[in-house]
Amino acid sequence: MQMGMIGLGKMGANMTTRLLAGGHTIVVSDLSAAAVEKAGSGGALPTTGLADLVGKLKAPRAVWVMVPSGDPTEQTVWKLRDLLSVGDIVIDGGNSNYKDSMRRAEMLKQKGINFVDVGTSGGVWGLANGYSMMIGGDKKIVESLRPIFETLAPAPDLGWGYVGPSGAGHYAKMIHNGIEYGMMQAFAEGFAILKAKTEFNMELAEVARIWQHGSVVRSWLLDLLAEALAHDEKLEDIAAFVPDSGEGRWTVAEAIDLNVSAPIIMLSLERRIRSRESDPYADKLLSVLRNQFGGHAIKKQE
Amino acid sequence: MQMGMIGLGKMGANMTTRLLAGGHTIVVSDLSAAAVEKAGSGGALPTTGLADLVGKLKAPRAVWVMVPSGDPTEQTVWKLRDLLSVGDIVIDGGNSNYKDSMRRAEMLKQKGINFVDVGTSGGVWGLANGYSMMIGGDKKIVESLRPIFETLAPAPDLGWGYVGPSGAGHYAKMIHNGIEYGMMQAFAEGFAILKAKTEFNMELAEVARIWQHGSVVRSWLLDLLAEALAHDEKLEDIAAFVPDSGEGRWTVAEAIDLNVSAPIIMLSLERRIRSRESDPYADKLLSVLRNQFGGHAIKKQE
Repeated sequence: MQMGMIGLGKMGANMTTRLLAGGHTIVVSDLSAAAVEKAGSGGALPTTGLADLVGKLKAPRAVWVMVPSGDPTEQTVWKLRDLLSVGDIVIDGGNSNYKDSMRRAEMLKQKGINFVDVGTSGGVWGLANGYSMMIGGDKKIVESLRPIFETLAPAPDLGWGYVGPSGAGHYAKMIHNGIEYGMMQAFAEGFAILKAKTEFNMELAEVARIWQHGSVVRSWLLDLLAEALAHDEKLEDIAAFVPDSGEGRWTVAEAIDLNVSAPIIMLSLERRIRSRESDPYADKLLSVLRNQFGGHAIKKQE
Repeated sequence: MQMGMIGLGKMGANMTTRLLAGGHTIVVSDLSAAAVEKAGSGGALPTTGLADLVGKLKAPRAVWVMVPSGDPTEQTVWKLRDLLSVGDIVIDGGNSNYKDSMRRAEMLKQKGINFVDVGTSGGVWGLANGYSMMIGGDKKIVESLRPIFETLAPAPDLGWGYVGPSGAGHYAKMIHNGIEYGMMQAFAEGFAILKAKTEFNMELAEVARIWQHGSVVRSWLLDLLAEALAHDEKLEDIAAFVPDSGEGRWTVAEAIDLNVSAPIIMLSLERRIRSRESDPYADKLLSVLRNQFGGHAIKKQE
């Protein structure tokens, strides 16, 4: 089918490639003219901007927004609200906060425009392996986009599905990322203990390789870990500094709002925050307090 | 090759079946005569006890011990120490504490008997899928058992390997289980939040199904979860009570001994402990203290 793709970063560009390979007609737009040109040379229909993109699509139009979450997505949705017509569809495939998606669905609905929120997982591997997609919105509208989802997914009937009303897709993706934080942290801690047990001098890459088949912890994350450790086990060039891009925070806030106990997802986020403190004041205070009541030695700053 | 199997519980019986199918000669023993008879009717050579089993094996003998960890394993190893001869091999495939395995290796070595510790993962699925095995001991002795490992593993070159000296196999398995605790807890928390978000009324089984392909959290544990949720999503007949069989505790103790921070593995164990407290005294105390300093309402026992 025909669809617009706004945003040709890593995700949008790869999705465009996968959709073109699947026989779809993709009309593209990006702030970078070079990105548009590149997609054009790959078979997409280039445009000079959103108005041009909307003009090149036949009604009812479907426009996939794959720009960074937050302000860029917000601005794009507002512009599309002005440019699109009754019955058109805006799809947000980014990592938007589900509350924003619920609000955007309402704001587009006022003009008769449909909104579909797609929680998309798969990262840079999605081009080759396909994307996992959790989809929220009006079920009939989602169904009308089936050819797109069938092409983007790992297989036409696998890795994608309808999960609920507007916001539900991004909600499921948020929880997916929260779980991902916990799984990553579990592997990180386990391998750190193995590494610290110097008397066994274990090859971590070999342990990961063994676990890839037949073990309870076999998983795609372990596959990535096995590859990374086989390439470099010491990680001497890697800083012990872990960013986060928001979805873990939202998961934690949601658990608190719902009064659901989710300690290890919280703590996995906390560990990332702690990794970014190079000289934490709290630990200095603990050291001072131990000294105050017990006369315990303080380690001085070097 | 020829090998003895002591212990025909779920694990030992399934391993015997897989080894027989692989063309090996397996001489079996178990406290239960019925279990021995059953294995015998499946093609194993039955015996009346350890002495009979040792007598039926040609030197150098290899004897796989697959009895519960702790006292049953300890007793079995002591008996084998008396019955076996220089050059024979005792293999402990159970979930023994690695410190016990190091000690047992020493105690058998005094009589010239070899010891191999095999951390075995795969549970009841191992019969069909093969077992993941982390192996500790003398590398040459481990190599002499290669035909056994190649048959038990998912494939001759996958899912098994040598990881280090005596104790290293069970150490790797202990860490594997610690990671497993964290992964399970991450999934449990994520799905609990999804379930609590009643406004989306999400089908948890469908979310799990979507994640099985193309997502970052795809894993064998998620496959099991998808199957369990498809069968029963409400879990109304399941008590919120989670036992543990020791390896999580050992992982936590090890992290503390090594001064390695492993908060989420610790907290995953803690959650299991908490799940077994039906009326925790600590929570009552917190409620009383809040009342003491702030006059906050106390909820009375019903």
